[in-house]
Amino acid sequence: MESLGVALGSRSYPIHIGADLLGRTDLYAPYLSGSVAIVTNAVVGPLYLEKVRKAVQGARITEIVVADGEQSKRWEVLNEIFDALLRARCGRDTLLIALGGGVVGDLAGFAAAIYQRGIDFLQVPTTLLAQVDSSVGGKTAINHPLGKNMIGAFHQPRAVISDVATLDTLPDRELRAGIAEVIKHGFALDAAFVEWLEANVEKLVARQRDALTYAVRRSCELKARVVAADEREAGERALLNFGHTFGHAIETGAGYGSWLHGEAVAAGMVMAAELSSLMGDLRKTEVSRVRELLKRAGLPVKGPALAPERLMELMATDKKAAKGRTRFVLLQSIGRAALRGDVDDALVRQAIVAAAQ
Amino acid sequence: MESLGVALGSRSYPIHIGADLLGRTDLYAPYLSGSVAIVTNAVVGPLYLEKVRKAVQGARITEIVVADGEQSKRWEVLNEIFDALLRARCGRDTLLIALGGGVVGDLAGFAAAIYQRGIDFLQVPTTLLAQVDSSVGGKTAINHPLGKNMIGAFHQPRAVISDVATLDTLPDRELRAGIAEVIKHGFALDAAFVEWLEANVEKLVARQRDALTYAVRRSCELKARVVAADEREAGERALLNFGHTFGHAIETGAGYGSWLHGEAVAAGMVMAAELSSLMGDLRKTEVSRVRELLKRAGLPVKGPALAPERLMELMATDKKAAKGRTRFVLLQSIGRAALRGDVDDALVRQAIVAAAQ
Repeated sequence: MESLGVALGSRSYPIHIGADLLGRTDLYAPYLSGSVAIVTNAVVGPLYLEKVRKAVQGARITEIVVADGEQSKRWEVLNEIFDALLRARCGRDTLLIALGGGVVGDLAGFAAAIYQRGIDFLQVPTTLLAQVDSSVGGKTAINHPLGKNMIGAFHQPRAVISDVATLDTLPDRELRAGIAEVIKHGFALDAAFVEWLEANVEKLVARQRDALTYAVRRSCELKARVVAADEREAGERALLNFGHTFGHAIETGAGYGSWLHGEAVAAGMVMAAELSSLMGDLRKTEVSRVRELLKRAGLPVKGPALAPERLMELMATDKKAAKGRTRFVLLQSIGRAALRGDVDDALVRQAIVAAAQ
Repeated sequence: MESLGVALGSRSYPIHIGADLLGRTDLYAPYLSGSVAIVTNAVVGPLYLEKVRKAVQGARITEIVVADGEQSKRWEVLNEIFDALLRARCGRDTLLIALGGGVVGDLAGFAAAIYQRGIDFLQVPTTLLAQVDSSVGGKTAINHPLGKNMIGAFHQPRAVISDVATLDTLPDRELRAGIAEVIKHGFALDAAFVEWLEANVEKLVARQRDALTYAVRRSCELKARVVAADEREAGERALLNFGHTFGHAIETGAGYGSWLHGEAVAAGMVMAAELSSLMGDLRKTEVSRVRELLKRAGLPVKGPALAPERLMELMATDKKAAKGRTRFVLLQSIGRAALRGDVDDALVRQAIVAAAQ
């Protein structure tokens, strides 16, 4: 097991990463002071709920199982969680455990953020995406009919328990989508990690546990460093959005659900790399490294069959647009991203075309 | 105008108190960086919305008017606010202004706490209760069918603008209920303020503006001091609940809405004072001072016609009960409250009976 700390003053917390952590009583014990509520979904519950239940046995346990999928990130489901917590007379000393992927983490984390004005919770992510991304940073949210993640809170977990053994049951496509976010952390923040990935990416695809443990740890370290410097997402944290401006447009343009988030980010990173090259910052050989690594992870490097104009239109309406001008996270070099607001539309169009070659 | 600061590190904020502040552009200007959304209710809106609108003119303004009354503190109404904010394309730089009493403050404050994971807001309280109580401390919440204030957040306003001229239109009963909370701050925390109240309470009832300004300022100062020491309500903040354990039971026992919160707290303070006396801490003459001051403010000093056993039963189910034992905020002397968990049921019963004499 490897452990690292996220430094956020009085809200600091540890992240534990390794194989077979789910059932380790000692990882939950420090946070038990009253009853426990475990929130999971209908896919993850049957696989892993029993292990967590045993690890916290002795405490009074309320189990809350929501439907699988993004459609659970809405108020009606949140209210079901509150109903269950209130019926079970859960108080402020209840520990909520979010067991599942990003949807469960966002939903249950937000429930913990606003139930009785905030209770403690643990993130126990069971997808690679959640282990490297949504479990670090304290972002929680539900969707609103008029926008994704529009209603939410920053609420840090007391601890994150990332058991890479749970990735054994993750569908292949989801595993690869998670690897896209790992790769993103490398290209945006750490050239040495990119080199490690270039040497080891096949081990990740093969679910080799030591490789997964290292990749999750390094991703969390990189993200944690950024989050610690910018908890409320004012500046540096935007660098974590490398590939996301294009990626969101791809997700929306293709129709939500047809592309996984990580897949869209992968194709988005190639576009962002091409744009970085057109801006004169990144060399062609470096753009190739972005494309090649993603390919080896089995990720898409070309966007869906959409006119460049359509993607640009979608980016313009993205919530990350500031004062009418789309901002891009571009690479200055491998492992060094920067936020650019001075990008000519013609270059953006050219980058989309170049990425499609 | 008088101003004081609530010291909460990076979340510190000023409270401005005085007559005719509502229309003062300079009090809003420091917080304007984008559009403005004003949330008010159907009673307060027609009286004061125009003044606030003029004070922030120049900014793009979205007006959101909810129904008057406690029943607006629920998810459906919160969602109406989110719909309006999203339709108006309000972003993270939107300033939300809560214009109204405690319900508007709790509801709009909670909306600000979770809209796009938190936006800035100003409290512009227009009832005495809100000016001395709910606008200080950052508590925001909505009700759940299974419990009051069960869903909420701690979200500090950027500033509070308390215009005592708005109290001119406050119904007499609500004014007196607000005075109950002012008196509570005195008895729980400051003997000198009790003496000032004993000399000036009739001026408050007569809505004399200088007296109101002083009473609001001193109440806020006292509450702010406690909140600064205990933002998340772990310990000292409980002292602000003097009279509330009995008060909540009175409110529930009488049926919500038949007693105003402040009225129930008034009768609750007499019970708590009698109990303090039975515990050997407070002298009989001091209990009389509690009763007399409340009487002069036109507040009830006896609870509703309920059996003592019924009140005790209601207190036992109160959420403030910790580990099965009801905790009471009792007076050690005038102006010095303490939390007691070691109170015999027989004494509680005796105190209720004594208060009814």
